[in-house]
Amino acid sequence: MDIRKLSVEELCNKVKEKTPVPGGGAVGAVVAALGASLNSMVANLTLGKKKYENYEALMQEVLENMELVLERSLRIANEDVKAFDKVMEAYKLPKEDPTKEEKIQSALKEAVATPFELIECARDVLKYAEIVAKWGNQNAISDAFSAAELARAACKIGEYNVMINLKSMVDESFKKKIMDEMYEVMGEAKVYYERIQELIKENGFTKI
Amino acid sequence: MDIRKLSVEELCNKVKEKTPVPGGGAVGAVVAALGASLNSMVANLTLGKKKYENYEALMQEVLENMELVLERSLRIANEDVKAFDKVMEAYKLPKEDPTKEEKIQSALKEAVATPFELIECARDVLKYAEIVAKWGNQNAISDAFSAAELARAACKIGEYNVMINLKSMVDESFKKKIMDEMYEVMGEAKVYYERIQELIKENGFTKI
Repeated sequence: MDIRKLSVEELCNKVKEKTPVPGGGAVGAVVAALGASLNSMVANLTLGKKKYENYEALMQEVLENMELVLERSLRIANEDVKAFDKVMEAYKLPKEDPTKEEKIQSALKEAVATPFELIECARDVLKYAEIVAKWGNQNAISDAFSAAELARAACKIGEYNVMINLKSMVDESFKKKIMDEMYEVMGEAKVYYERIQELIKENGFTKI
Repeated sequence: MDIRKLSVEELCNKVKEKTPVPGGGAVGAVVAALGASLNSMVANLTLGKKKYENYEALMQEVLENMELVLERSLRIANEDVKAFDKVMEAYKLPKEDPTKEEKIQSALKEAVATPFELIECARDVLKYAEIVAKWGNQNAISDAFSAAELARAACKIGEYNVMINLKSMVDESFKKKIMDEMYEVMGEAKVYYERIQELIKENGFTKI
């Protein structure tokens, strides 16, 4: 199954099924990809406009970076499914298998990588959402704000999926390292998100 | 263009284009649909399990309601594009057309309906995310939490898209009515979201 080739309707149907994948992790990655796409849209609607000619290079930077994040997010969506399957395989090994516990632990460590990468993607979408909201076409500012909300959701989903894998992990120093790194990236994401929230208020897009 | 039939990759490409639609509104609706699908997945993973046999009827209720929300969200995704096109058409009428302003105002009122409905869908996804997080299969609890984050994002996106249409509207009593109604629904959504945040903390899915 290649998630990027599924239609929106097919993806919803696959998610609904009585199987744990594709689940939150894969969906979160698709949502990060949609956030990156919205940032690119704002950049595209800015390029070539006289009013924004000073920001042409910046908008090109947005497009290049969002293309990378989009590709990375869609790759993560597929990898998340594979990583989960590997954990499940390890859990299904017979109790007598002396390598079982080692295989579970190693699969869990691998499974942490995809939601961790998702948080990095979400942080990058937030970084560029702030840029396009500030210097991009102001007629599309609500699309930059929407990209930020999608990225915040993807970031939180990444956190929950990192944490679920850490729960059964025994290597305490690995757990601490991952959590420290994760909360550092999430801290960066939070700074961008809060600055965007200020812009949302200043521009009158919320009254609460 | 039928958004539900686009592949994930095609949708991203359509969003990226130098055209304002599909934009945040349509993407927000797709995200609400994915949230509803995650709730359904948790319900499906709960049904038929001895441990959760007391919640069979509740899980059926989840499935029925999420099916409605899923359909409604995907309809909104397509309608959002049409509503925007109608507003743009009215703006493009010649200045001399005496019906121009009236047509703009009427198109704006129509265009408020889809993001408003999106907020209602998001509120419903949050309501059922709390239910499946509490009484659904606990192995899938992070998927319920993920559904809640997607719904929160969809809700905020709905707000920004209601507000952008209200900005150019002249009928103050209509604006007040819509905002009052919107913040009532968003208030309900917030209560569900905050209760889910408590569950996330209690279950150790966040350390911040």
